[in-house]
Amino acid sequence: MTHFPSFAALRTICLDLPAGDAAAAEAAARRDATLTKPPGSLGRLEDLAIWLARWQARNPPRLDRIEVLVFAANHGVVAQGVSAFPAEVTAQMVANFAAGGAAINQLAAAAGARLRVVPLDLDRPTADFTKEAAMDEDAFLYAVATGYDAVPADADLVCLGEMGIGNTTAAAAIAAALFGGGGIRWAGRGTGVDDHGLARKRTAIDEAVKRHAGILDDPLQVAAALGGRELAAILGAALAARRQRIPVLIDGFVCTAAVAPLARLRTDGLAHAVAAHVSAEAAHRALLDELALRPLLDLGMRLGEASGATVAALILRAAVACHTGMATFAEAGVADKL
Amino acid sequence: MTHFPSFAALRTICLDLPAGDAAAAEAAARRDATLTKPPGSLGRLEDLAIWLARWQARNPPRLDRIEVLVFAANHGVVAQGVSAFPAEVTAQMVANFAAGGAAINQLAAAAGARLRVVPLDLDRPTADFTKEAAMDEDAFLYAVATGYDAVPADADLVCLGEMGIGNTTAAAAIAAALFGGGGIRWAGRGTGVDDHGLARKRTAIDEAVKRHAGILDDPLQVAAALGGRELAAILGAALAARRQRIPVLIDGFVCTAAVAPLARLRTDGLAHAVAAHVSAEAAHRALLDELALRPLLDLGMRLGEASGATVAALILRAAVACHTGMATFAEAGVADKL
Repeated sequence: MTHFPSFAALRTICLDLPAGDAAAAEAAARRDATLTKPPGSLGRLEDLAIWLARWQARNPPRLDRIEVLVFAANHGVVAQGVSAFPAEVTAQMVANFAAGGAAINQLAAAAGARLRVVPLDLDRPTADFTKEAAMDEDAFLYAVATGYDAVPADADLVCLGEMGIGNTTAAAAIAAALFGGGGIRWAGRGTGVDDHGLARKRTAIDEAVKRHAGILDDPLQVAAALGGRELAAILGAALAARRQRIPVLIDGFVCTAAVAPLARLRTDGLAHAVAAHVSAEAAHRALLDELALRPLLDLGMRLGEASGATVAALILRAAVACHTGMATFAEAGVADKL
Repeated sequence: MTHFPSFAALRTICLDLPAGDAAAAEAAARRDATLTKPPGSLGRLEDLAIWLARWQARNPPRLDRIEVLVFAANHGVVAQGVSAFPAEVTAQMVANFAAGGAAINQLAAAAGARLRVVPLDLDRPTADFTKEAAMDEDAFLYAVATGYDAVPADADLVCLGEMGIGNTTAAAAIAAALFGGGGIRWAGRGTGVDDHGLARKRTAIDEAVKRHAGILDDPLQVAAALGGRELAAILGAALAARRQRIPVLIDGFVCTAAVAPLARLRTDGLAHAVAAHVSAEAAHRALLDELALRPLLDLGMRLGEASGATVAALILRAAVACHTGMATFAEAGVADKL
């Protein structure tokens, strides 16, 4: 199993990232220009095909193996009364994933994707980060490594997601630590917390940022102190995908906060990733804007579980189908201009 | 074959529309509330499942047969120099559809849909509507009937689209006639016309609205005088779908303009239809706003061919998969509140 010995060692790896394959991207763009449609008329479908080619380092790109990875964990901060559901629901939903009854099971099947759920120490919640660091260095690095190792080398696309009661508070705390603005900017209703719960969330986030003021300039220490195991695993998985040049679809608010440290460490740290959607969680749009990520979909979803990412995988299938299957103007005998 | 004897007879049918099935919609909403997710967390996927149930008059809704209907025709207004492509491309693209080489072929396959292309007198363009009515009453009603009869009674969903060099000018003329604002508001670049072509489009639209000033208060006569055969067929298909309670996905600007008369004749005339996407054609957003239609997707597409509608059909498949396949809280043993 991968072992990251220290924050410093992980940081070095996060800074040592491959670029995409410019030649493959150019080949894809050249083919796109010959297809029987006005130039640019498939909009983002064209961009997506070229992006896939760039990060798969081949043209045409393929989506033979789409891997949906859902990481699950529990959070000490639920003691602050920040969630509308009890912490037991994390394990109950992991059982529901295993039994095939959750939304993500249906969506993965619809997208022709393989679903893998990775629970991380569900019976050992992280510490309440309003009091102390959620994870110490070892626990954080172990969770990152778990996510890192979960990415199959032969995946053509990875959809990242999470399940963890309380984790929109962790995501908001990371966002507040990295981008400022406090609980008022980043706390939302998550699974449906009421006004009192929302007020408690805001307070918890503000207390956490204050308590961990000394480490806010280090994105990895922020992820350890204010995050959660499933967020750390998502960071690891996004890193592994980049290192192997596998394109990634980022899910909602929690998933976006989980990968944000990669962009803070290196401006192009998320160049291999596309934001699948903007969720109904109020702060997601602001977080995407901070990261200059333009979401593919805006369907009012706010479930997590990689549900938005997996719906977006359908759009990628459409993009690849057009790019691969369409005839060129020459093949079809269609006039390409006046 | 269906025969509409007069504008008046067609108008009577357009006003005699069934409502959706409230009981089926209520059954779908009741089931939705029991599924293992926070209420509302699948956003528009939940609305779509309930909408499908309402218009299929059954719960759960099904998508066993998705029919993509692409109507194609030619336009006399191309004489005004309003398109970036020659009129021959309409027939060439119909041949490309038949050979399987167009975007819509790939997208229909990806959506598990059946594609049917219906060319309407390609060698007989409509008249130049800057000079006279595009179609007389008989020609218009024949095209409407052709579309009406193209909807299979056993379809679970119909995706409507078009192909016709010059038809964004016809669509813009209809929009200008129904909603005001002239060529400056409704003309866009279509398949990619240059600045001079855009200016010619605006002029053609303004001339057409002026020439046909006497019939602007009758939406069906507007569709005949300023539209085109494929737009008339789309109107007929949308009407047939409503009469048989089959839900419809509307494609881009041209398709939306084609069905707009139904909404002008009766406020709820498009209640069985969802706008699949907002296209990159500049005026589409304004037209959707006029019709109070909220698009599902915003992917910068502007191809026509039912391409946006068929991509949106993938989203409907995701919605139905969740609604049908998810476990309830009781089945899964998941706590549904604190």
